[in-house]
Amino acid sequence: MKQFDIESKILIVGLGLLGGSYAKALSKKGMYVSAIDIRKESIEYALKNGIICEGSTEVQKQMIQNADVIVFALYPKVFVQWIKEYQHLFNPDTLITDVTGVKKCIVDEIHAILRSDVEFVAAHPMAGREVYGVENSDDRIFNGANYIVVPTEQNTREGIANCKKLGIYLGFARIAELSPEEHDEMIGFVSQLTHCIAISLMTCCDNEGLVDYTGDSFRDLTRIARINENMWSELFMLNKQALLTQMDIFMHEFQTIRHFIANGEVDKLKDKMKLSTKRRALFDRK
Amino acid sequence: MKQFDIESKILIVGLGLLGGSYAKALSKKGMYVSAIDIRKESIEYALKNGIICEGSTEVQKQMIQNADVIVFALYPKVFVQWIKEYQHLFNPDTLITDVTGVKKCIVDEIHAILRSDVEFVAAHPMAGREVYGVENSDDRIFNGANYIVVPTEQNTREGIANCKKLGIYLGFARIAELSPEEHDEMIGFVSQLTHCIAISLMTCCDNEGLVDYTGDSFRDLTRIARINENMWSELFMLNKQALLTQMDIFMHEFQTIRHFIANGEVDKLKDKMKLSTKRRALFDRK
Repeated sequence: MKQFDIESKILIVGLGLLGGSYAKALSKKGMYVSAIDIRKESIEYALKNGIICEGSTEVQKQMIQNADVIVFALYPKVFVQWIKEYQHLFNPDTLITDVTGVKKCIVDEIHAILRSDVEFVAAHPMAGREVYGVENSDDRIFNGANYIVVPTEQNTREGIANCKKLGIYLGFARIAELSPEEHDEMIGFVSQLTHCIAISLMTCCDNEGLVDYTGDSFRDLTRIARINENMWSELFMLNKQALLTQMDIFMHEFQTIRHFIANGEVDKLKDKMKLSTKRRALFDRK
Repeated sequence: MKQFDIESKILIVGLGLLGGSYAKALSKKGMYVSAIDIRKESIEYALKNGIICEGSTEVQKQMIQNADVIVFALYPKVFVQWIKEYQHLFNPDTLITDVTGVKKCIVDEIHAILRSDVEFVAAHPMAGREVYGVENSDDRIFNGANYIVVPTEQNTREGIANCKKLGIYLGFARIAELSPEEHDEMIGFVSQLTHCIAISLMTCCDNEGLVDYTGDSFRDLTRIARINENMWSELFMLNKQALLTQMDIFMHEFQTIRHFIANGEVDKLKDKMKLSTKRRALFDRK
């Protein structure tokens, strides 16, 4: 496999918010970026605005063979389907990576079907916005954010290093590494559980009038309640067991705090608040 | 009662983050602001930085009698105690207001003990920060925020109008009015419930290592998990029934969503996400 560097040619498959933000970040560094997306307007917008050098709504052999790195920014199931249909077009030694929000099931499935002469290194950029499409893409979402590489035993040291370098070129602040299982447990907690909470807050009662009264707390806890139902329901289902476990852990703790309030156990309630304050402080320092 | 205007003299009792932010906002408008606080450093800091014109660590008769409006920015129980001890020093026709985060119990208790020739109009500024003290005060927290006046039948039209004008002078974007019962139900939901959720997220498992992996969702949902345990446990206990009710409503909805995920009821899950998205959009437009 070629070393990833500024000369590497990147193909983005799926030019939505994340794919578009990848393209912007890498084009700004002076790299050659092409893209494939079924939506004609996305390709036209990206070409017109200098986000990509080359684009197509069709799967073009030449574009695929020209790429050193192919980034899949598709819904999980579409990603797997795409690999099945078009992997015969890959150049040997191409690095394949992705942005998928769940890992274990996807990584296993891709490795099971993928040609042995190309390498897939899974990655999860921990960045996003509550809006969609290349028109809303913004490479600044990567500043200060975490990029998680999720390798398996089938990956080479070279492939993993190249995937990490991509994260650095994109502008992420921190490059981390987790196993697929660790990733899915972590994501069940920090991302999927928090989305379930935000949704529940918005749907548990008729709160449309509250906008006239609320402070920032409610706004903060519900920002992510604007959610793409197709993408997120797919992600939830693909990570069902880890998510249910995290929901149960959270609910147990929430019930404990409810119990302290109901029984006036103020000292125990304060202990929870002190622990919460101490732990949360860590997140502000970094 | 005198009309509230730019000539009104304001006394702040309790010069912490909120009291200090009130003082800054009103001093910047050119108003005469004095303050009483037991912490000597707070008074010295505020005098030195032009946040107040006059200050004392003692309860001074002259300062109290000179004020047209007295704002209590104290913990709820300290506020009630203060009124009991020092209300004999009030001038007739003084407007008394507060910033207390719970209303029904406080408003009832204050009205039960207060002299009949001064008027107390309760208010709740829906603004704050996760830091404390006059040194961290910042009047910009009121920009774009909601100010809720919580009158009872014992209040006069004049008193309520003066209290609302104070909110306008402070720089709040929206002045609303709720009954004490409505206020406490609302605050149980948008503020206290959200704090319980944030605390639970931080304390339900050992998550100190997560800072290397997490994205913005978890940060957003736990910002308010840095919490002053003395103030918030007091507020929770004073609004116990409303808070427990809101916790139960939330938990029931969260369980419903868990059920949809566990049973693969994807269409029902998507319906919740669509409703959540639609409702949350209202909060972005205003």
